Amino acid sequence: MTDLTDRRKLRMGMVGGGQGAFIGEVHRIAAAMDGWIELVCGAFSSSADRSKASGRSLLLPDDRVYGSYQEMIESESRLPEGERMDFISIVTPNNMHFGPAMMALEHGFHVVLEKPMAFNLEEARQLQQKVTETGCSLLLTHTYVGYPMVKEARHLVREGKLGAIRKIYVEYPQGWLSKLSEVTGNKQAAWRTDPQQSGQSGCMGDIGTHALHLAEYISGLRATRLCASLQTFVAGRKLDDDGSVLLQFDNGTSGVLMASQVAAGEENALKIRIYGENGGIEWNQQEPNTLLVKWLEQPTQVYRASAAYLSEEARAFCRTPAGHPEGYLEAFANLYRGLALSLQPWRNEGKAGPYDFPGVEDGVRGMAFLDCLLKSNESNDKWTDFTV
Amino acid sequence: MTDLTDRRKLRMGMVGGGQGAFIGEVHRIAAAMDGWIELVCGAFSSSADRSKASGRSLLLPDDRVYGSYQEMIESESRLPEGERMDFISIVTPNNMHFGPAMMALEHGFHVVLEKPMAFNLEEARQLQQKVTETGCSLLLTHTYVGYPMVKEARHLVREGKLGAIRKIYVEYPQGWLSKLSEVTGNKQAAWRTDPQQSGQSGCMGDIGTHALHLAEYISGLRATRLCASLQTFVAGRKLDDDGSVLLQFDNGTSGVLMASQVAAGEENALKIRIYGENGGIEWNQQEPNTLLVKWLEQPTQVYRASAAYLSEEARAFCRTPAGHPEGYLEAFANLYRGLALSLQPWRNEGKAGPYDFPGVEDGVRGMAFLDCLLKSNESNDKWTDFTV
Amino acid sequence: MTDLTDRRKLRMGMVGGGQGAFIGEVHRIAAAMDGWIELVCGAFSSSADRSKASGRSLLLPDDRVYGSYQEMIESESRLPEGERMDFISIVTPNNMHFGPAMMALEHGFHVVLEKPMAFNLEEARQLQQKVTETGCSLLLTHTYVGYPMVKEARHLVREGKLGAIRKIYVEYPQGWLSKLSEVTGNKQAAWRTDPQQSGQSGCMGDIGTHALHLAEYISGLRATRLCASLQTFVAGRKLDDDGSVLLQFDNGTSGVLMASQVAAGEENALKIRIYGENGGIEWNQQEPNTLLVKWLEQPTQVYRASAAYLSEEARAFCRTPAGHPEGYLEAFANLYRGLALSLQPWRNEGKAGPYDFPGVEDGVRGMAFLDCLLKSNESNDKWTDFTV
Amino acid sequence: MTDLTDRRKLRMGMVGGGQGAFIGEVHRIAAAMDGWIELVCGAFSSSADRSKASGRSLLLPDDRVYGSYQEMIESESRLPEGERMDFISIVTPNNMHFGPAMMALEHGFHVVLEKPMAFNLEEARQLQQKVTETGCSLLLTHTYVGYPMVKEARHLVREGKLGAIRKIYVEYPQGWLSKLSEVTGNKQAAWRTDPQQSGQSGCMGDIGTHALHLAEYISGLRATRLCASLQTFVAGRKLDDDGSVLLQFDNGTSGVLMASQVAAGEENALKIRIYGENGGIEWNQQEPNTLLVKWLEQPTQVYRASAAYLSEEARAFCRTPAGHPEGYLEAFANLYRGLALSLQPWRNEGKAGPYDFPGVEDGVRGMAFLDCLLKSNESNDKWTDFTV
Repeated sequence: MTDLTDRRKLRMGMVGGGQGAFIGEVHRIAAAMDGWIELVCGAFSSSADRSKASGRSLLLPDDRVYGSYQEMIESESRLPEGERMDFISIVTPNNMHFGPAMMALEHGFHVVLEKPMAFNLEEARQLQQKVTETGCSLLLTHTYVGYPMVKEARHLVREGKLGAIRKIYVEYPQGWLSKLSEVTGNKQAAWRTDPQQSGQSGCMGDIGTHALHLAEYISGLRATRLCASLQTFVAGRKLDDDGSVLLQFDNGTSGVLMASQVAAGEENALKIRIYGENGGIEWNQQEPNTLLVKWLEQPTQVYRASAAYLSEEARAFCRTPAGHPEGYLEAFANLYRGLALSLQPWRNEGKAGPYDFPGVEDGVRGMAFLDCLLKSNESNDKWTDFTV
Repeated sequence: MTDLTDRRKLRMGMVGGGQGAFIGEVHRIAAAMDGWIELVCGAFSSSADRSKASGRSLLLPDDRVYGSYQEMIESESRLPEGERMDFISIVTPNNMHFGPAMMALEHGFHVVLEKPMAFNLEEARQLQQKVTETGCSLLLTHTYVGYPMVKEARHLVREGKLGAIRKIYVEYPQGWLSKLSEVTGNKQAAWRTDPQQSGQSGCMGDIGTHALHLAEYISGLRATRLCASLQTFVAGRKLDDDGSVLLQFDNGTSGVLMASQVAAGEENALKIRIYGENGGIEWNQQEPNTLLVKWLEQPTQVYRASAAYLSEEARAFCRTPAGHPEGYLEAFANLYRGLALSLQPWRNEGKAGPYDFPGVEDGVRGMAFLDCLLKSNESNDKWTDFTV
Repeated sequence: MTDLTDRRKLRMGMVGGGQGAFIGEVHRIAAAMDGWIELVCGAFSSSADRSKASGRSLLLPDDRVYGSYQEMIESESRLPEGERMDFISIVTPNNMHFGPAMMALEHGFHVVLEKPMAFNLEEARQLQQKVTETGCSLLLTHTYVGYPMVKEARHLVREGKLGAIRKIYVEYPQGWLSKLSEVTGNKQAAWRTDPQQSGQSGCMGDIGTHALHLAEYISGLRATRLCASLQTFVAGRKLDDDGSVLLQFDNGTSGVLMASQVAAGEENALKIRIYGENGGIEWNQQEPNTLLVKWLEQPTQVYRASAAYLSEEARAFCRTPAGHPEGYLEAFANLYRGLALSLQPWRNEGKAGPYDFPGVEDGVRGMAFLDCLLKSNESNDKWTDFTV
Repeated sequence: MTDLTDRRKLRMGMVGGGQGAFIGEVHRIAAAMDGWIELVCGAFSSSADRSKASGRSLLLPDDRVYGSYQEMIESESRLPEGERMDFISIVTPNNMHFGPAMMALEHGFHVVLEKPMAFNLEEARQLQQKVTETGCSLLLTHTYVGYPMVKEARHLVREGKLGAIRKIYVEYPQGWLSKLSEVTGNKQAAWRTDPQQSGQSGCMGDIGTHALHLAEYISGLRATRLCASLQTFVAGRKLDDDGSVLLQFDNGTSGVLMASQVAAGEENALKIRIYGENGGIEWNQQEPNTLLVKWLEQPTQVYRASAAYLSEEARAFCRTPAGHPEGYLEAFANLYRGLALSLQPWRNEGKAGPYDFPGVEDGVRGMAFLDCLLKSNESNDKWTDFTV
C-alpha cells in the first residue's frame, strides 16, 4: 500500500449520519480504517440537539458539532488551515445532497457523496460544472467497485483474456421492501420510497444505479440503449420496487440488468457475469473474495483475494493475507483511501492527483440512466437511446 | 413407487439415436432404468447399414432393426399384439419430428418426442389434433420437470407457502456454441444451427423453450406478453445463439428469461428463481438435489431430495436415500415412468390414465412461444402478446 | 463407451432385495441402466410368498422366483446355458453374504456382493480362495469408486500432478442413526446395528470401510498402521455408531479417517481431500460431478464431469454431456458395466478379462481393516499395525 | 452497539509491527475501526531507525516512536495521565511476548497479546499471576471468536438447541508452508518455523491453538485427554508443520482436531462442525457470514450475519446490514471493542468491567495444550491427559 508521504491526516466533516442511521456509520468506519482520515466535525441531524448527542457519542468536542450544514461549512471555513475540515461526507437522503455539496464546493471543500448523486439530473449537472470550476474532488460512493476482485475482473477484461465481450448479466435482488415497511416505522424504507426525498425512482435509484455502474466499470463498455420494465409490487408504495432492463452496449454487447427490492428472502445479492469469446467472469458481492473465471474448454478457475497471482491493481486493494476475508467496509475504505491519496498532491501542489474512484461523471451518468429508465418504462417503443 | 400391476413390460421402438448421437442413448437409459420398458426395435439411421450396426450394438435382433421409420411402423403394425412395439421414441432433428410422429399416431402407437415438438407451429397443431382423435399418449421430453425438487418447488407454490408470486427469473446459459463449431465437424452443432433442420430459432428453440416451460410448470402461471431481444453473436451462424426476454404473466407477475449458447465456460446452467410475497425458491439444474427455500424474515432452508419432510409428490420421484445424488438420467426416467404408468389402463381399459408429464399441449405452447419471440424480436413495439 | 461385442445380455439373479429393501432396487437399476444386463431370477426373501410377490412386481415369471438361494442356485444350474443366470447379486445383511456367495462360486456363477464382504475375516479369506480356485469374478460394490471424478482424481495422483502425497483426510458423516431407530421399526437400522447380522462393527463396517477404500483407491497408497477411537453414542445401541482413526500410509503419508452415523443433520456426506507437494484434490460425494483441484500458487480449478479436458479413464465412465448431472445410480452402474465387460471374454474364452472394479482382494482388506480397528480401539497403544 | 459513555478515546502503544509485518497492520486497523482507540506511540522495530520510519508512515510524532519496548514503557509512564498510552499491543514473534508484556503490566498498562501467549508454559503462568496481581486486562487475540456467527453458534449450543453435544470436528488446513520458504526470504515463515522464536511447536502453536480455542469456546466443553500425531513434512524444517489430534471432552464428547500448513492450495480454511443429539452447526472462516444449522429431520437452515432472527449476542457484533459482508478485520475489531468497553469502568472506577474476549486463562490453556500435544506425540500411549 502506498503511504501518505506528507504524514498529515485528512480531516473529515459529516452531514447527516446521526444515531440510528446506517450509512453514516459505514462512512466513518471506512474513513478511519487506514488511519489516514479523522472525523473532526459534523452536522449529524437537522435537530441541533440530536446532532450534539450524536457528536458526543462519536467523541467529538461540542464546538465542532453543528446544527446545520450551512453552519458547519461557514464555521469551518473560518478555522485555520491546519485545523478546519478538508472534506465533507454527505450521507443524507437524496433530496439533501445538492445543497451541502454545492455549498461545500463553493467554499473549497472536497466532497464525498452517496449515490444517486442528486435528486435529479439537473442538480447533477450543476455539481459537475462546479467541480470543474473549483478543481475540487468529488468521490461518489459506488462502493462495489472498491472490491479487489472487481478490480481483478476489470483487469482480466482489459487484458483481453476473455476476448471480445458479448454478454453482461448484472442482477441485484434484495427482499427488504417486500412489505409496506415505510408505514410501519422503518426509517430507511420511509425515505427511500418517498418521491419527495428519494427522487423519481425507488429501486432503480437505490440499487439499479449500482448495477449499471458495476457493469460499465468492469467491462469498460457504455450502455447505449435500453428497454426497461419497472414495477411497483407492494400496494400503497409510491415508487418502483422492482425492474428489469434489456441493455445494448457500444460494442454490440447485449446485457440484462435486474434489480428488485421485493425478492423476498434475498439480502444484498448483487452479482455480475460477463462473457466474452473465450470465457467469462462471475462475481457475487456476498462472497466478495472469490472471482470465478470460466474458460471455454478448460476448467473454471477460482481466483481469490490477496493471492499472489492477482494483478497488481487488485492486490493494491487487499489488506489481509489470502483466506482472511475482507468485506464491504474494506471496499468502502478503498474508496476513501483513493480520496486520501488523490488529495495529497492537492495539499502539497494545489491539484488533486489521478485516482481510481467514482466521481462526478459517474454521478451524472447515473442520473441520466434513471431518466432514461423512466422514459423507456413509459414508452411503447422497445428501445430508448441512452445518452448523457 | 407405484407398481406396474399388470406385470407387462412396455415395448419401445426408436427413430434416430444411432451411434454417436447423444440424446438417443439418454432415452434408452431413461426408459430402461425402472425395468418397465424394453427396447424392441428401431430405425436408428436413415442409412440401413448404419441402422443395423446400431441395432447390433444395442443387442437387438436384426429383424427388428429397420432402415426407415415408415418401414418400422408398417412392419411392427403387422406383428401380433404381444410382440409389437407399444410406443415410438423419436430422437431425430426437429425437421424429422412430424413425419414419424404423425404416422405412429395414425397406426395407434403412442409417441415420445423431443422438444421443440415440431418444425413449426402448424405441424404442432396437426399433431395435437391427431392425439385428440386417436386418444394416444404423447410424451414431450421437457426433462427438467422430471426432477423431484422441481416437483417440490411446484408444491410449495401451489400450497401458497410463498404467497402471491411476484417475480420469476429463469436463465439458461450454455457456452458450447461460442465458436462456429457447426463448420468444424460437431454434429450436434451442425443440425441445431441449421434452419433447415432446427426451424426458425436456434438457442431459443433448443433451450429457451425449456426455460419457459419450467417457469410455467413451477409457478402455475402463464406468460401473456413478452419483449424479446435475440442475438447471433458468432459470425457466420444462421440462427440466434442468445436471447433475453422480459415476460409478464397472467396474475401480474413479472419475469425475465435469459438463454444463451455463447456464455463461454458455462455447461448447462439452467436455474430458476421465483419470489412471492413471503419468500422464494431457487433451483439449479446442475445441483438438482438441492432446492433453496428463502423466507422473508427467517433463515433460508436447504431442501434436499429424498428427505422425509418433502411432499408426497416430490418423494414419489426419488429412487435413492437422501445424500445419494440422482441426476439428469433419473429425471428423464421419471418422464418415462409416467408414460408407463399412464399406459397401464390403456392396455387394460383402452384409455390412458391421468399423468404428470409434459404432453402435446406443452408442445404447441412451446412452438407458439417461438413464433411470438421471433415476432417480438423483429418488432419495434415493446410488448407482444403471447397467445396460443 | 465400449460395446458388448458378442451381443448377449448378461443374466442376473438376485438374493435378497425384496419389497421395502433399499439396496436391492439400487442394484437392479444399476444393472439395467446400460441395457447389457437383465434380471432373470431371484430369491428375494426368506419367505417364499414374499419372494413371489417381489418377483411379480419385478415382472419376473413365477418359475424363476425362488424361496431360498439354495433352491435358486440349484434350479438355475439345471437350466440350459442360454437361459440360466450368469451371476448372482447378493444384497442381504452381512451375515447372509457368505452362504450364497460360496455356493454360487461352487456352481460356477459369478458373484456381486455388498460390502463389507462377509461377516468376518475368516469368511472373507475363504471366499478369496474360492474365487482363486474357480476363476469366477467377484464384484464388491464399493460404489463410490464408480464415479468419474474419482477416476479423475486417481489419474491426477498417478500422473504425479500433485507431487508426492503427504496428507489424506477422508470423512463420512451421516446422521440417520442419531436416535435408537433400531427399536422403532426402521429395518435398515435394525440389522445394521445388530451384531448377529452386521458383524463386530456398525458404523465402521457400514461406511468406514467405504472411506478407507476410497482413500487407498485414489491415492494408490496402502495404510500400514492406525490409531482408532470408536464410540457408541446412542444409549442401548450394540455397535459403534461413530469413530475416528489416525492413519499412516506406506510412503509416510499421514491421514485421518472419520465416520459417523450420529452426525445429526448430515445425509451421506462422504468427502475426501488429498494433498501433495504441489496441490490437492477435494471430492464430495453429494456433489459428485465436481472435483476441486487446488494448486500451491495458482487458482483452484473446478474440474467437471464429462468435460473434454478430463482424462480418458474418467470420460469412459460418463454417460451425459457436461452439465447434465450423473449420480449415485450411474456410479453404481459403472461397476456393473465393468462386470459385464470383464465377463465377455469369459463367455467367449472361459476367462474373465481385466477390469476396474473392486473385487475380492478389496473385500478381504476391508474385513482386515475392521479387525484392526477393533483391536486398536481396545488397545492402550497408540499405533496398531495394519496388515492383511 | 454500546457507546463509550465517557467519551474518551483509548490510547494504544505498539511493540513490533513495523513495515512489512502483517499482523501489526491488522491490529492497527482493528483498533481504529470503531473510532474508540488511537495509536499514540510505538516501538516498531528493534532498530531505532526502522522504528522511526515506521512511525512516520503511521503519522506518529517522532517523540512517541521508540527504539525499544523498555524505552517506550518507561517514557510513556512518565507522561501525564491524559496523554500517555493506556495499553500496549505486542505483535512480535512468540519469544518476544513475555518481556514487554510483563514490563507493561508492572507499569500498570493493559496488554494485547498475539497467541500463543508466550514462548512456553512457565512464561504464561507468570503472566497470569501478574495479571491477577495488577488487575490489568490482557486481551489474547484468538480472533476467530470475534465473528458474529461464532457467537451465534455458541448461543445455539448454550440454549440447548442441538441437544447434548456428541461430536466436534475442527480443522485448520493452510498450504503456505508447503515449501521450505523459511530459507528463501519469507519473513513470516522464517520466525514461525524457528524454535528459537516460535517455541517448541510450529503448526500447532500457530494455528492448532486457534482450533482448540474455537472448539471449546463454541461448545462450552473442555478437552480432557488427547492423542496427537504431529508431522514435519518439509525436509529441513525444524518444527511440526502438520498434525492430527483425537480429543475427548469433559462430557463424553469425542472430537478430532486437524491442522496443517502443508495442505497445498489451501489458504486459511478454519472450519468447525459440532453435532448434538438434535442437529449440528457448521462454520467456515473463509465465508464467515454464514452459519449452517443442520437438523435431524428438518431442512438445514442458513443463518446469516446481521439477520434480525439472530440472538442479541450475535447481533451486538455486527456493523453492517445483512448481505454486506464483514470479515476478518471486523472480527478482530470486535476483540478491541471488547477491550475498550471493559476499560471504561477501569478509567472511571479503577476496575475493568466484565468482557467477552479471550484473556490470560485462554493463553495459559493454549500453552498447556501445546505441552500436552508434544508429550502425546512422543508417547506410545494412546491417550494423554490434558490438564492445566
